[in-house]
Amino acid sequence: MASAVRPPEELTERLIDRLCHDIAGSFQALASGLDLLSEADSPRMREEALALLADALAAQMAKVGYARRAFGSAPQATPSGDLEALARGLFAGNRARLDWTVAATSLGPAAARGLLNLVQIAAECLAMGGVAAVAARRDEAGTAIVVEALSPRAVLRAETRAGLAGEVLGGGLAGLWVQAALVSELVRRAGGELAVQEGEGAVIFRLNFPPGG
Amino acid sequence: MASAVRPPEELTERLIDRLCHDIAGSFQALASGLDLLSEADSPRMREEALALLADALAAQMAKVGYARRAFGSAPQATPSGDLEALARGLFAGNRARLDWTVAATSLGPAAARGLLNLVQIAAECLAMGGVAAVAARRDEAGTAIVVEALSPRAVLRAETRAGLAGEVLGGGLAGLWVQAALVSELVRRAGGELAVQEGEGAVIFRLNFPPGG
Repeated sequence: MASAVRPPEELTERLIDRLCHDIAGSFQALASGLDLLSEADSPRMREEALALLADALAAQMAKVGYARRAFGSAPQATPSGDLEALARGLFAGNRARLDWTVAATSLGPAAARGLLNLVQIAAECLAMGGVAAVAARRDEAGTAIVVEALSPRAVLRAETRAGLAGEVLGGGLAGLWVQAALVSELVRRAGGELAVQEGEGAVIFRLNFPPGG
Repeated sequence: MASAVRPPEELTERLIDRLCHDIAGSFQALASGLDLLSEADSPRMREEALALLADALAAQMAKVGYARRAFGSAPQATPSGDLEALARGLFAGNRARLDWTVAATSLGPAAARGLLNLVQIAAECLAMGGVAAVAARRDEAGTAIVVEALSPRAVLRAETRAGLAGEVLGGGLAGLWVQAALVSELVRRAGGELAVQEGEGAVIFRLNFPPGG
């Protein structure tokens, strides 16, 4: 894939922007819950407001938990069960659903982060609904990951395509671009390979990492 | 200052780690507030629990607001009033106090981020209390910032010193190192200068940026 000169600090700053933006979004839900609660004048209304607040807090914790694993530093091995829980969290309240068939029991640092980021990218391709099918296997030859966004209306946005190709942000949403650019960086650093295939009713991402990646 | 080869992605990952860690810390306060609230059986107890929750939410929003400006992408000019509000937020409930004498009405991108990060670094030097004195002026020659951590017990930790010198993390807390390393990077990229002076009763940071920095 083509590559352009891109200052590494841009990735850092844009990732921080995106994370802060994602978290700030959930402040609104927490603040609304607090407002509801202060106005609740019956036990039932209080109970509902409390449930709303608890949900908002859980959603925020899930977001930060995902971000830490997808964008932050990675342990040598991440159990697949942990990855599945984080991936399922992305689909809570989503129109699309997740089909998880990961055979590997754990993934290395680059593979774990690559998979998590591709799952969210697939979810973004499926804004109108569909199925995100995630498969991964790992052996002596390395790790192979396939993430498929399956829907007649699956769309890969231009800024995401640019990021995956290691290209600079030309236009569109920086928050979408930066996640794709991160995947491209991960692959480059770990000596892996990334292929993107846009077809009828599917956007397919294939990631390969050498052993240790 | 000495410089060692440090992979740029380490800065990104460690910054994300630090931000997620800081935010996760405030989940606890929110969860405690919710617990208190669900157990409150009098209007007065409910009011207290609500106030606690509102405080925890405000503290979390302040943290994210600070992180976005200090670690994320910066606008061309940030009004000094905005910087002061973010800096004051760092000292809420802190043993140390802030003495703000910034003459510049606004700061450029590198200067604004440098100042914000040094204010938090100064606060960390003053864990036992003291005064963080912040001054900045800006003219045609550029921007000069002086941040002083004033206390007989002011201490600059080794990992912070290493980060400011552009050195790799040798030991200690990665979360402290990364903020200092970010300042070092900012200065290098903007063609600025950073000097750190550790004396009797004071740790003094001096930052200089050329015009536009």
